[in-house]
Amino acid sequence: MINEKLPKIWYGGDYNPEQWDRKIWDEDVRMFKLAGIDVATLNVFSWALNQPDEETYYFEHLDEQINRLYENGIYTCLATSTGAHPAWMAKKYPDVLRVDFNGRKRKFGGRHNSCPNSSTYRKYAGLMAEKLAERYKDHPAVLIWHVSNEYGGYCYCDQCAESFRTWLKERYKTIDKVNQVWNTRFWGHTFYDWDEIVPPNALSEEGEGNVSSFQGISLDYRRFQSESLLECYKIEYEALKKHTPNIPVTTNLMGLYQELDYFKWAPYLDVVSWDNYPGLKTPESLTAMTHDLMRGLKSGQPFMLMEQTPSQQNWQPYNSLKRPGVMRLWSYQAVAHGADTVLFFQLRRSVGACEKYHGAVIEHVGHEHTRVFREVSELGGELQRLSDHLLDSRLQSKVAIVFDWENRWAIDLSSGPSVALNYVNEVHKYYDALYHLNIQTDMIGVEEDLSQYDVVIAPVLYMIKPGYAEKIESFVKNGGTFVTTFFSGIVNENDLVTLGGYPGELRKVLGIWAEEIDALFPDQKNQIVLKEERGNLHGQYECGILCDLIHSEGAKVVAEYGSDFYKGMPVLTENAYGDGKAWYVASSPDEGFLKDFLSHLCEDKGIQPLLKTPQGVEVTERVKDDQTYLFILNHNEASATVDLEELEAIDLLKQQKVSGSVSVPSKGVMILKK
Amino acid sequence: MINEKLPKIWYGGDYNPEQWDRKIWDEDVRMFKLAGIDVATLNVFSWALNQPDEETYYFEHLDEQINRLYENGIYTCLATSTGAHPAWMAKKYPDVLRVDFNGRKRKFGGRHNSCPNSSTYRKYAGLMAEKLAERYKDHPAVLIWHVSNEYGGYCYCDQCAESFRTWLKERYKTIDKVNQVWNTRFWGHTFYDWDEIVPPNALSEEGEGNVSSFQGISLDYRRFQSESLLECYKIEYEALKKHTPNIPVTTNLMGLYQELDYFKWAPYLDVVSWDNYPGLKTPESLTAMTHDLMRGLKSGQPFMLMEQTPSQQNWQPYNSLKRPGVMRLWSYQAVAHGADTVLFFQLRRSVGACEKYHGAVIEHVGHEHTRVFREVSELGGELQRLSDHLLDSRLQSKVAIVFDWENRWAIDLSSGPSVALNYVNEVHKYYDALYHLNIQTDMIGVEEDLSQYDVVIAPVLYMIKPGYAEKIESFVKNGGTFVTTFFSGIVNENDLVTLGGYPGELRKVLGIWAEEIDALFPDQKNQIVLKEERGNLHGQYECGILCDLIHSEGAKVVAEYGSDFYKGMPVLTENAYGDGKAWYVASSPDEGFLKDFLSHLCEDKGIQPLLKTPQGVEVTERVKDDQTYLFILNHNEASATVDLEELEAIDLLKQQKVSGSVSVPSKGVMILKK
Amino acid sequence: MINEKLPKIWYGGDYNPEQWDRKIWDEDVRMFKLAGIDVATLNVFSWALNQPDEETYYFEHLDEQINRLYENGIYTCLATSTGAHPAWMAKKYPDVLRVDFNGRKRKFGGRHNSCPNSSTYRKYAGLMAEKLAERYKDHPAVLIWHVSNEYGGYCYCDQCAESFRTWLKERYKTIDKVNQVWNTRFWGHTFYDWDEIVPPNALSEEGEGNVSSFQGISLDYRRFQSESLLECYKIEYEALKKHTPNIPVTTNLMGLYQELDYFKWAPYLDVVSWDNYPGLKTPESLTAMTHDLMRGLKSGQPFMLMEQTPSQQNWQPYNSLKRPGVMRLWSYQAVAHGADTVLFFQLRRSVGACEKYHGAVIEHVGHEHTRVFREVSELGGELQRLSDHLLDSRLQSKVAIVFDWENRWAIDLSSGPSVALNYVNEVHKYYDALYHLNIQTDMIGVEEDLSQYDVVIAPVLYMIKPGYAEKIESFVKNGGTFVTTFFSGIVNENDLVTLGGYPGELRKVLGIWAEEIDALFPDQKNQIVLKEERGNLHGQYECGILCDLIHSEGAKVVAEYGSDFYKGMPVLTENAYGDGKAWYVASSPDEGFLKDFLSHLCEDKGIQPLLKTPQGVEVTERVKDDQTYLFILNHNEASATVDLEELEAIDLLKQQKVSGSVSVPSKGVMILKK
Repeated sequence: MINEKLPKIWYGGDYNPEQWDRKIWDEDVRMFKLAGIDVATLNVFSWALNQPDEETYYFEHLDEQINRLYENGIYTCLATSTGAHPAWMAKKYPDVLRVDFNGRKRKFGGRHNSCPNSSTYRKYAGLMAEKLAERYKDHPAVLIWHVSNEYGGYCYCDQCAESFRTWLKERYKTIDKVNQVWNTRFWGHTFYDWDEIVPPNALSEEGEGNVSSFQGISLDYRRFQSESLLECYKIEYEALKKHTPNIPVTTNLMGLYQELDYFKWAPYLDVVSWDNYPGLKTPESLTAMTHDLMRGLKSGQPFMLMEQTPSQQNWQPYNSLKRPGVMRLWSYQAVAHGADTVLFFQLRRSVGACEKYHGAVIEHVGHEHTRVFREVSELGGELQRLSDHLLDSRLQSKVAIVFDWENRWAIDLSSGPSVALNYVNEVHKYYDALYHLNIQTDMIGVEEDLSQYDVVIAPVLYMIKPGYAEKIESFVKNGGTFVTTFFSGIVNENDLVTLGGYPGELRKVLGIWAEEIDALFPDQKNQIVLKEERGNLHGQYECGILCDLIHSEGAKVVAEYGSDFYKGMPVLTENAYGDGKAWYVASSPDEGFLKDFLSHLCEDKGIQPLLKTPQGVEVTERVKDDQTYLFILNHNEASATVDLEELEAIDLLKQQKVSGSVSVPSKGVMILKK
Repeated sequence: MINEKLPKIWYGGDYNPEQWDRKIWDEDVRMFKLAGIDVATLNVFSWALNQPDEETYYFEHLDEQINRLYENGIYTCLATSTGAHPAWMAKKYPDVLRVDFNGRKRKFGGRHNSCPNSSTYRKYAGLMAEKLAERYKDHPAVLIWHVSNEYGGYCYCDQCAESFRTWLKERYKTIDKVNQVWNTRFWGHTFYDWDEIVPPNALSEEGEGNVSSFQGISLDYRRFQSESLLECYKIEYEALKKHTPNIPVTTNLMGLYQELDYFKWAPYLDVVSWDNYPGLKTPESLTAMTHDLMRGLKSGQPFMLMEQTPSQQNWQPYNSLKRPGVMRLWSYQAVAHGADTVLFFQLRRSVGACEKYHGAVIEHVGHEHTRVFREVSELGGELQRLSDHLLDSRLQSKVAIVFDWENRWAIDLSSGPSVALNYVNEVHKYYDALYHLNIQTDMIGVEEDLSQYDVVIAPVLYMIKPGYAEKIESFVKNGGTFVTTFFSGIVNENDLVTLGGYPGELRKVLGIWAEEIDALFPDQKNQIVLKEERGNLHGQYECGILCDLIHSEGAKVVAEYGSDFYKGMPVLTENAYGDGKAWYVASSPDEGFLKDFLSHLCEDKGIQPLLKTPQGVEVTERVKDDQTYLFILNHNEASATVDLEELEAIDLLKQQKVSGSVSVPSKGVMILKK
Repeated sequence: MINEKLPKIWYGGDYNPEQWDRKIWDEDVRMFKLAGIDVATLNVFSWALNQPDEETYYFEHLDEQINRLYENGIYTCLATSTGAHPAWMAKKYPDVLRVDFNGRKRKFGGRHNSCPNSSTYRKYAGLMAEKLAERYKDHPAVLIWHVSNEYGGYCYCDQCAESFRTWLKERYKTIDKVNQVWNTRFWGHTFYDWDEIVPPNALSEEGEGNVSSFQGISLDYRRFQSESLLECYKIEYEALKKHTPNIPVTTNLMGLYQELDYFKWAPYLDVVSWDNYPGLKTPESLTAMTHDLMRGLKSGQPFMLMEQTPSQQNWQPYNSLKRPGVMRLWSYQAVAHGADTVLFFQLRRSVGACEKYHGAVIEHVGHEHTRVFREVSELGGELQRLSDHLLDSRLQSKVAIVFDWENRWAIDLSSGPSVALNYVNEVHKYYDALYHLNIQTDMIGVEEDLSQYDVVIAPVLYMIKPGYAEKIESFVKNGGTFVTTFFSGIVNENDLVTLGGYPGELRKVLGIWAEEIDALFPDQKNQIVLKEERGNLHGQYECGILCDLIHSEGAKVVAEYGSDFYKGMPVLTENAYGDGKAWYVASSPDEGFLKDFLSHLCEDKGIQPLLKTPQGVEVTERVKDDQTYLFILNHNEASATVDLEELEAIDLLKQQKVSGSVSVPSKGVMILKK
């Protein structure tokens, strides 16, 4: 992602001058310059200001802000302001207000508050985007469009119900087909007319916490709502592109956000951008995984870090300060995983309302003599010095982990076998092991081409979409190593079970049959007992949550359960298939197992760690043309010594040569240009 | 319960062929035969199929199923399909939809979803039952009618409000009487007109968790709703009986289900049937108690085990598999407690919706080579060999525990003295002690004749209904041993306190006065200190939850409190009254106390354990004519040795003579014909 | 508070003869006399009885009760009966029913159930008060008016919305001003018309647990609702005063009740009265603090203990009995803190509905031979003997703690920095330390004159109202010692941050700047490390919850943080300002610190403990004219020896001289007249 106007890592963030008196504005600019800030995201929540009533549009204030900043060398990431509708609109056109999960019509308030199927909302949001595009299409300050803000939430109003029926008609054509794919004969829920279908919520098929009587309708409603919001985005996208075909368009995503299928959104984002808000106790590997997932949305294309806090958040239970150096470290972690921007929420801390205790570049004290501002300035200087070095470089991974939102929804919605099963946790366990092995990993969707990888891991691949089993088979046949786990291959894209024995369509490639699935209480454990040593993998490990009771149908039994009535049954199998191998992990293993297991698989495929580092030191590598950049990030409280082995390189941040054994300070970062 | 058509323990369960393609049907029959299945429950959730619109009825599919099965030797338990209304009905007649506890009108979805006072629902449910009765009245396959399914839940709609007022008029005649029995002068809630009365829910008198401002109205609303659903049942019952007076009618109950007063229902059930779903951690004695309660609903008449899972459930947090042998063991436990059928939910596991991870005889794999199917088949064979041996035999108990739903509601609704007081737990504590002593016990309602028992225990008999105190007095006068506990005798059937001193109407027979009631925090305990040894009962024990501060008014003080300011006050008293004795246990004791206390009482009355067995080995006895069947059930993980003492008998399952010391394998069962 | 009709500590409580048959009434009077009861609170919940329909009023029953009691020497505290509206009113005029936080229109039920802005409710409540005043204005029995009962709860109906807009217009005049003080530019919530504003609840700006998107509107809605209820009170107050200008008027408050700003109410109460319901585990110092707060509402004027239970409550999870002596001890504790009455809820225990397990003077047993009645009678005798001794005497404190409801609301509503921050807890920590030091303390509002105190402590004074910083400055300038803590001085009365650096307006007097605020997880702790010894204050202590990162701007750094990246930064500072000192405690300290810190401050100002007593022995002092009464209250389970030092006095309860070392029995009380 190289933008000719500003060919460096963009630095800045959300800026809301409309909340402030004019006298503050000059001070802002002075401090932005001190901090090396060159991008401001404007107009995020200004709809009510831009459009004080149905007929009137007012953009002079925005002209002034954009110009003022531009004259001071600061570019604009221009938001469309449609993340929250104006109060007058809610009063005049109540159809913009959502009906919530409990069936309550909401009143004006909050954000994420517009019904995605409201014709009023769609009309005026689209119109706003178009007016902005017309007005600023030739403005040199505008780098990128930022549509709406953090799309999210579902609506259950009558208009959504009507649109859902239309959506269903398009997808399934006949009501008979709907009855079949939702298995409505169960409990006698057969529909004879489209109008009998109502949205699944607390008044109909669902309960709190993803409980549903009918997974089929619940799954489709999630698809429908995710697409409804995407539709809103696309209306704005098209309005913008009509007038500014060459300005990229994005909207800020929220990482692992449950309710939207971001893989469906990604094709309509020119560049992925996202908001990263880890807490003091968030594992670094979870942040890393989320960066990789965001990068994976567009097959490895660099992404934007659209928001992060320079110091603390306001909405967590305990809003710890980011410790000294951590803001910088986590900024570089984003870059290390493919970000080409470092942006904050927000540039100036607001004076009132619920985010006033959210950190900002300019704190309430208003001057530059703060720890936070100093750290922001130092990073700003570094990024200026880094110039365009890293831009558009890519990470190259031979290992991929599959992540699928619809699969996640189906697992979340499943009634049984265990409430302890959490898809994201299971995926993260595998990622975490690779992370600690310094094996670079891609997070990919089910549309991704597998042939670029040596090892593909699909934890709890419960839902097999049409053609995906064949895709895996051909990957393995051609020499790939495939890993999946318990509770995989169970259903099709409508959550209907693939009959004939689990893991359904994956049975052939895995060479096993899962006869039963035991769910363990949190205080119950079983063991993975190796039958023979495989690399580091030996002895026994713990497992739990679910235990598939499997039979080999050709697969080699590598490990067996250590206890309970299925002691001696296989828990880890390896199936030779074509030129490759397909592994099945029949339970949820402990950390030690995964580290030994995955290092064995990687070794077997000749995949080496990027570097051997002490615990807590993260490594990634970005490559552009023939240039390789090695990132070394020390998350520890103490400095760490890293052996660079044969490597001779230039430390880009210090602009000096390094080799041999180097010391990385606590929270320190090195970017080595090989 | 001996049915001439099929004079053996019925074996089979819920079967939903309408959810499946025709090609599966033949396979089903083949496997049913392999498993020894001879009964299928059909038509449970087929209302929408049977009646696709208001005018049309369609039963050909059902004809075909019944015939097909019958031709293959499988009888039908025929459900009426009214457990969930069709979607078209909800759309056309929204009065069938309930209003929930929070006052929300529900939309179509779920089951248990019909307003019990909806005229539409009552009309069409009755009509459906009648049409089925007319159609199948002469069909030789039909063994029994299964009305609706698992009746449950309450409604708070305007129609229910109106019907509630009518119900109140019938019960109380005048509004003055209502004001009096609800004590509405409290908080000035006096009603001057029936129309001022609204259902007690979250919008009026109640809060979450049985919190109520007025126990009187809340108690009556529970009575009214339980009776409203019973009314629905009776409409179908009468429609069925009109055409098939000789076919028994039942509906499947749910054991300890809180919301319905099953003792009020039992007179209208020709045979009690119920659904038994213990989990891995459910105490065996709780299952046993529930069987005994279900048997007690009709004074000891054998009952039907209508549903159980062959392997696992889907709706528990952790759905463990039933360990090998456990399905068989628990099936025989039901029989040992009076069941004359062993039926499953379900015969074939569904392909979609929320119960697809609920176990079934035929699993998703679809063939017979599964552990579950093998266990089902083995049991099927055994039951065929048992033939009519056990049918209609009875359990004979000299000890009874009183259980009363209205008493339970009143305790649940009570504001104070302690949230820790749980009626079912207190009852179960007493049952559990007897269970471990191998003392066979009946669970009886307040209508039951007490003269057949030597010992009657009524834990926390908070509510004394009209005449019940006299019934107890006469039982004791005639030599019986009566036991009750703290917080008993407090209120009448309207939850109005019996003035003049606790335990109110029981004060005379117990010879005590309870001056105050202390509620203990969970971390507080008191002690039961024996004043003299009574059999095993000696030394001291722990107690808690509530401590009544009692004074003897003639009763012998057997034990005193060991601490707090009421140290030295009586905690256990025995009152000689007529030829019998009435005991009062003034606090909630520990397990050890109850075992020693109850064994003392039984010894005193010459009641002997059925057999002395190691821990974990359950024993019951069924008797028919002069024939006695002794059940020995080993719940342990290891085999157990049981000393049969003088007994010489035939092991019915192995068809061999046994005597002396026998070994019962882990999860094993013996049925000894003396 | 000396009432000529009954110049002694009033003794009695809530009495509801209308719930009882006439035959009980004589028995009541007999027992009241036995107990020394001379005041009965009548008519609390009799609206439906007094006004059976819109046109009819009926007071004959009340006449009879008042007369009957008066003839027996018992005076009346006359309630206006408007604490719960009649059922007929709810049916005929649904505008009296509230809409709850979730937007649900309630139906008839409960209490606290009238919309405070309902014109129907206001009209008929006012009319009822007026009719009562007219009728009883000359009745010699009536001592005081008791308006409604325990006002509380909020409403969110359309009428409230309309009244809220009117309230806002009066307060802010223009919609622009509203936009400014609520900072509506944030999230684009700008209002262009008053009608666009809706109440903040679960359908608009708020979530469960004081979560709000806009603190400004939420704060104003709390003010508005508190004032709306006060408005209802004032309507009755004025109706009463019109006819009985000389009879005092009160309403019973609820101590630390969150939802009403009692400091705003106090000016309209002729005397403060409140209901005191501690539980077994409530710290005695919390009860003491609440008494002091209630006394502080009217600047030290004696208050009424309007309700307490003689034995147990019904609405706590575990309703322990008050141990022997505790009712007496806690009654005297109230008197020791300024109460001039001892009243119970209730005189006779009700027979039905939710308070039947709430203790009463006359228990369900109905006679006087109970522990509870004996204790009540003994106290009754003592209070008669005490005569007018203590009446209208005052407590004199040199230390005050500031308590402010609006500050509390703002802290509760704050999004960030920590959910662990609880204003009442923080205030109580300081109070508790002084309590254990036997330093008498006033609880004061922000309107109170500070010049009467030597030490003023304002824990977490987050919100600084106009002029309050100046008030503190002048207090310190004149020699006072002021203490405040972390998270103080942050916002103005609209929850808008005071820009320029925390603690905002307090920065000058404190001589510090708080740069950042760290929120600690519950398992995180920091340390307060003293730089030098200050009295008892030395070594190190623990602290947590929030840690302000402060810089001295002139203040002396007395202690530093002991760990984390801000180790060595100031955690305790003392700033000389004028003749006084201003202290800042930058984190939430442990108990040990506060005891040492506050004893140091008091010593420094020459404030001595009233007496040195063993742990658990509380001391207060009331003074009238030249007479001093010293209260010694032993809360321990064992007797305690108290050294009276030089003091020679008369033990008022025993009517004997005491001096030297005296033994106070467990739960015992001494009132020493010096």
